[in-house]
Amino acid sequence: MTDLTTIGEIGLIERIRQATPPPLHSETVQGIGDDAAVFDWGNDYGLLATDMLVEGIHFDLGYVPLKHLGFKAVAVNVSDIAAMNGLPVQLTVSIGLSSRFPVEAVDELYEGIRAACAAYNVDLVGGDTTASRSGLILSISVLGKVPKDLVTYRSTAQPNDVICVTGDLGAAYLGLQLLEREKQVFLADPNMQPNLSEERSYLIQRQLRPDARTDIVHELHDLGIRPTAMIDVSDGLASELLHICRQSGTGAVIFDENIPIDDQTHLAADEFSISPVTAALNGGEDYELLFTVRPQEFDKLANNARITAIGYLTADPKQIILATKAGQQTPIRAQGWENFMK
Amino acid sequence: MTDLTTIGEIGLIERIRQATPPPLHSETVQGIGDDAAVFDWGNDYGLLATDMLVEGIHFDLGYVPLKHLGFKAVAVNVSDIAAMNGLPVQLTVSIGLSSRFPVEAVDELYEGIRAACAAYNVDLVGGDTTASRSGLILSISVLGKVPKDLVTYRSTAQPNDVICVTGDLGAAYLGLQLLEREKQVFLADPNMQPNLSEERSYLIQRQLRPDARTDIVHELHDLGIRPTAMIDVSDGLASELLHICRQSGTGAVIFDENIPIDDQTHLAADEFSISPVTAALNGGEDYELLFTVRPQEFDKLANNARITAIGYLTADPKQIILATKAGQQTPIRAQGWENFMK
Repeated sequence: MTDLTTIGEIGLIERIRQATPPPLHSETVQGIGDDAAVFDWGNDYGLLATDMLVEGIHFDLGYVPLKHLGFKAVAVNVSDIAAMNGLPVQLTVSIGLSSRFPVEAVDELYEGIRAACAAYNVDLVGGDTTASRSGLILSISVLGKVPKDLVTYRSTAQPNDVICVTGDLGAAYLGLQLLEREKQVFLADPNMQPNLSEERSYLIQRQLRPDARTDIVHELHDLGIRPTAMIDVSDGLASELLHICRQSGTGAVIFDENIPIDDQTHLAADEFSISPVTAALNGGEDYELLFTVRPQEFDKLANNARITAIGYLTADPKQIILATKAGQQTPIRAQGWENFMK
Repeated sequence: MTDLTTIGEIGLIERIRQATPPPLHSETVQGIGDDAAVFDWGNDYGLLATDMLVEGIHFDLGYVPLKHLGFKAVAVNVSDIAAMNGLPVQLTVSIGLSSRFPVEAVDELYEGIRAACAAYNVDLVGGDTTASRSGLILSISVLGKVPKDLVTYRSTAQPNDVICVTGDLGAAYLGLQLLEREKQVFLADPNMQPNLSEERSYLIQRQLRPDARTDIVHELHDLGIRPTAMIDVSDGLASELLHICRQSGTGAVIFDENIPIDDQTHLAADEFSISPVTAALNGGEDYELLFTVRPQEFDKLANNARITAIGYLTADPKQIILATKAGQQTPIRAQGWENFMK
């Protein structure tokens, strides 16, 4: 018997992918192996993505309000559709509930789900409700669409492409550290007041209520830009960059000083004695978009404050490198590739 | 605070449905409230259904082989598509796994999933894998299609329609009773040999590895028959008949002697001192199709050994009646409507 930890989550997905036979239906364009499956529905490509969130693994109801959880559960699924350069259309929500949840808790959760559906222009069309022996389970599936000539995979990047990332990275991870610390303080002394001041609000918000970057998808469509590859940053920049490089057969160089990191992230990283670059590389849950564009296309994006160029792809798939200000080059590894967690 | 048990699962779904705003996208034809959501994709209607299975609630790995569980998890989802008179095309599988599961267990589960995908002509196109604190969680979503003029809802039945059911009912429930009894015997004395003889094999198979009735869907399409309403029998005949009647605004009379029940089901029901009709009405998990057709259409089906007429719909929505051989009439209630379980 082989322990799951020996092959890790990525190894498990790869094992499942390899054992899956080729599609029976010609309309199935892309199966396992990207942020969403892709179907040929005539005018557009259809997209289907799904994500499961389990209490005690993905969230702690000790500090996660149910309304925010509902919003986040939708946002992380919509983010998978955005990562294909697509926009969401419909979604289903399945929930497993243990008996400790009252009806009002379900109401709160769905309030957040409906708020996210309104924000991302998605129809809630179904789902399943069931009992659970151990807390809350959420499983969401989302259908989306993308014009055929704009669909963006992980596997189609090329050497010399510019590596771009939206927004900033690492904040969601430091938000989690702050929430975890306050929880420990509270558990030690329930009379303590939480120390989550205004200047931390961005980090907390990034952790509790992340936004899917459908705004960037609209912008790419408007500019007529099809990235050469795209993925959303759910497990950290390192893991996502490795996915693009492995699936495209390229190497990469990224520059640590170019990685966009918010001032609040810097401050909190200092306080927790964490390198902010490490938080960006391995923290995860930022739900920004990591994408690559041909160098000649990048001009159209160069002045966009929401997009930062952090490096470029190279021809040698063995060289995936973080270059530091001091001229040091270190190979990029990803935590998510070894552990079965998250 | 309101306990979930006070509104029940059906009450909870109704509460969610009522709070859901009308669709934003004109292609969303049907949202919450049927076996699958329905989308206008041009030539055909698209269908999306989803089901969550939780260890300790829906299955007991003490006697459910993982391979059968994988098959069943796919079959119950495909059954939802069949209930719309549609056929499945693609599906995603999300699994939550606690650390006690080795890689080989996941292999076995997927062996069953792949077998079902081959049996029902579906492409496995994605999913999610995650850790779980408490056993196995399976969440499957399935996409299907149906010609627009054949889509079948729950809400469009009419008085005088003939009520039909496929296959036979109650066997899955008695299979479960047998498996539960053998488990108790085994727990009391691990040296005991299981008493699951050949003449019980049908009941065990109906519980462990039910079949979705896509064969009936093909037959209905071939005969050019569009049922006036259809639903799959997952929670028991009573519950499903109430759904059709409530959503169509009709009453119903069914005849207990007409309910198709296998000989093995009769024998085992005797042994457990259960009425076989009660097993059919409230047992659930048969995954047969319950549908209604116009009386003049029924002739085309009358000689089909896989389909049984069990009664007819009436105009008074308050009269949903089981008529016994002895001339007694008793109102039909459904367990699933009161309890929050399953």
